[in-house]
Amino acid sequence: MLSSKIISVGDEILIGQIVNTNAQFISEKLYSIGIPVKKINTIGDNEDALLTELDDSVRNYDVTVITGGLGPTHDDITKPILIKYFEDELVNDEKVLRHVKSIFVNRNIKMPDVNYGQAMVPKKSKVIWNGMGTAPGIWIEKNNKIIIALPGVPFEMKAMIKDSVLPMLIDKFTDKLDYVIKSRTVLTTGIGESSLSELIGDVKLLIGEDKMAFLPTLYGVRLRIDVKRSSLEEVEERLNVIENSLRKKIEKYIFGTDDDLLEQKTGELLLFNKLTLSVAESCTGGLLSSKITDISGSSEYFKGGICTYSNESKIALLSVERKTIDNYGAVSEETALEMAENVRKKFGSDIGLSTTGIAGPSGGNMAKPVGLVWIGYSDGKKTYAKKFLFGNNRERTKIRSAYQALAILKKEISNLLNN
Amino acid sequence: MLSSKIISVGDEILIGQIVNTNAQFISEKLYSIGIPVKKINTIGDNEDALLTELDDSVRNYDVTVITGGLGPTHDDITKPILIKYFEDELVNDEKVLRHVKSIFVNRNIKMPDVNYGQAMVPKKSKVIWNGMGTAPGIWIEKNNKIIIALPGVPFEMKAMIKDSVLPMLIDKFTDKLDYVIKSRTVLTTGIGESSLSELIGDVKLLIGEDKMAFLPTLYGVRLRIDVKRSSLEEVEERLNVIENSLRKKIEKYIFGTDDDLLEQKTGELLLFNKLTLSVAESCTGGLLSSKITDISGSSEYFKGGICTYSNESKIALLSVERKTIDNYGAVSEETALEMAENVRKKFGSDIGLSTTGIAGPSGGNMAKPVGLVWIGYSDGKKTYAKKFLFGNNRERTKIRSAYQALAILKKEISNLLNN
Repeated sequence: MLSSKIISVGDEILIGQIVNTNAQFISEKLYSIGIPVKKINTIGDNEDALLTELDDSVRNYDVTVITGGLGPTHDDITKPILIKYFEDELVNDEKVLRHVKSIFVNRNIKMPDVNYGQAMVPKKSKVIWNGMGTAPGIWIEKNNKIIIALPGVPFEMKAMIKDSVLPMLIDKFTDKLDYVIKSRTVLTTGIGESSLSELIGDVKLLIGEDKMAFLPTLYGVRLRIDVKRSSLEEVEERLNVIENSLRKKIEKYIFGTDDDLLEQKTGELLLFNKLTLSVAESCTGGLLSSKITDISGSSEYFKGGICTYSNESKIALLSVERKTIDNYGAVSEETALEMAENVRKKFGSDIGLSTTGIAGPSGGNMAKPVGLVWIGYSDGKKTYAKKFLFGNNRERTKIRSAYQALAILKKEISNLLNN
Repeated sequence: MLSSKIISVGDEILIGQIVNTNAQFISEKLYSIGIPVKKINTIGDNEDALLTELDDSVRNYDVTVITGGLGPTHDDITKPILIKYFEDELVNDEKVLRHVKSIFVNRNIKMPDVNYGQAMVPKKSKVIWNGMGTAPGIWIEKNNKIIIALPGVPFEMKAMIKDSVLPMLIDKFTDKLDYVIKSRTVLTTGIGESSLSELIGDVKLLIGEDKMAFLPTLYGVRLRIDVKRSSLEEVEERLNVIENSLRKKIEKYIFGTDDDLLEQKTGELLLFNKLTLSVAESCTGGLLSSKITDISGSSEYFKGGICTYSNESKIALLSVERKTIDNYGAVSEETALEMAENVRKKFGSDIGLSTTGIAGPSGGNMAKPVGLVWIGYSDGKKTYAKKFLFGNNRERTKIRSAYQALAILKKEISNLLNN
């Protein structure tokens, strides 16, 4: 099996100024095409350290990706050390030079002389095109081992990995690559991990030799499926089969896949069904409204919200009956019901949602502990409230309450459609 | 000079499932006490790889910190490999065993047999106490080189580094430590980088040989001061001197230091001055309210908010005059003024804040581009609105608008106090 190594170069990583997120990205991508990373070594801007690492790379790994140290200043050691190690020389690359110059022209500033050096590349290397920045990537081979040097700027590096490095590696090793791995994450909400697990039943029957992980999050449970096959086509086909089997069992809890957001998907449901929404918030303190309005175009279906952070304002602004609060308290089913119903009427929306709870850390008691939250729903025909216990972390309780309100919204819109 | 190395152990890092944030935290801490990290090597759950790394560590580095591989299962190789490398044996630690048992008692679950192994530690080692989890840390010395093994769970590892490892290292190397580095970040808001720079004047005069960086953020400019001296006392004294000099020049823009939050500091100002607040939001969509209520105890000073996401709701719920919107538009100084004034009256609070703008990406035009935001302030005596241009990123515009509203609030409360 092929193997790879990452060398991250940069003093700023060693002094803890930045987190090495580049290594994570590259690891994931190399793993996905069947060239798993076996070692990630981070070194400073230090010539001897890089020479030692290069020597280890050429001896032991099919592919090495170096990030960092490719800039135009004297601190940037990667290119000089590659020249030294491979006994090569720098030559000017006309195409790269034109590109570097054009970047300065577009920024309307004079190119500093030091940037001419960025168009110089090792003679024995192939250039990896960097459309987003001035430092070209470098691909050098020795004894069938490949050394790839990329800039450390994350968005430049990522584009170069996806657009050039992965295709070039697949092309190079086409006969040697044993497998392709791909993940798909099926996103669920409104159901706990154990109930979901019961509905899904025997995981082995569903996925066979493939892998599925239950990943609880603040909005619901993510189901990550990992499939390994000998070609991308087979992988995609298998992922589709598993997703469809899952949908047969738990369709009503699924709101999307991979990077989908619950606030975006509920927004699409509202828009598609020409429904409007308003929210009355207490314990979520504006977060529910903020999540909804994170989505561009939300003004099409979101009328607005009222956040009442005191009993008096619940009475004055949401017309909650004083006797409801006196008899049952502000954190109660009855108050949640009135909040949802009344906010809907005040904004003239089709649906009203409400949250009222004890976010903590203080304010709880035996009967109503910190983390107790009531979430209300009202659409004119149906009004109800549901009780949750979210524990004693204020921030998490706010987030989980907001997402549970959206989960209820998703469920109810789906029900409206099926009736 | 002393030097150190980090070994991160775990397949989940090599396949790119998690980002190695532990290494960044440890690097920063070791650098701060004068034992800079020279290499960070990440390996899988692989015995030979760890043996090779240990050998390199004992030969070349004064201190090595290993994270990961300390759990109770057979994948967790760190303890067995330490035993093998140091030709040691495992012995039971009674105090650790009691602690591990107590954790399971508190969670009200039976302790699995496999967890008994967590109380077994190498005979030649010192235990590093893990108050937050079941895996103790290990400290072993050989030829005056120190190997420290810690669990990979970030919050456990971080507490152990701060509470035990750093004090133990300082104690151990007290004669050899050349320097101490410490940073302090002075947080400003309501002023741009260049204006701040003008007010501060010649940075060299202010900080001499020390370092200061201007770090723009969404809420304002952070000024990070780095001071290096031979003792912690000297560092602290110098940091205080620089902070005081800064305060003489830019006091009114400073809201705190280091981890202080603008929403927390403005909350303290409100509470201390017995003032109450309410907010009327359009373009921030609930985010301003949510930021304010992130602070525990905010119900003492925050009455609530109204988020109006349409012209009709601005008229119906915030009593904005229809002719104001017809004549000037929803995104205008006039609308912002009425929103701030009216929300204050509706909630009966001392101060009202408002936001109205075009978050984008659509909805802009030549006269009112995407990113145009008006922020209103009203306290009964003074009512005004300020105009901002925040560019075309929806999420950033929401955040910057919310923070600018808080910056205005901070400034006005400070003014109230000075009058």
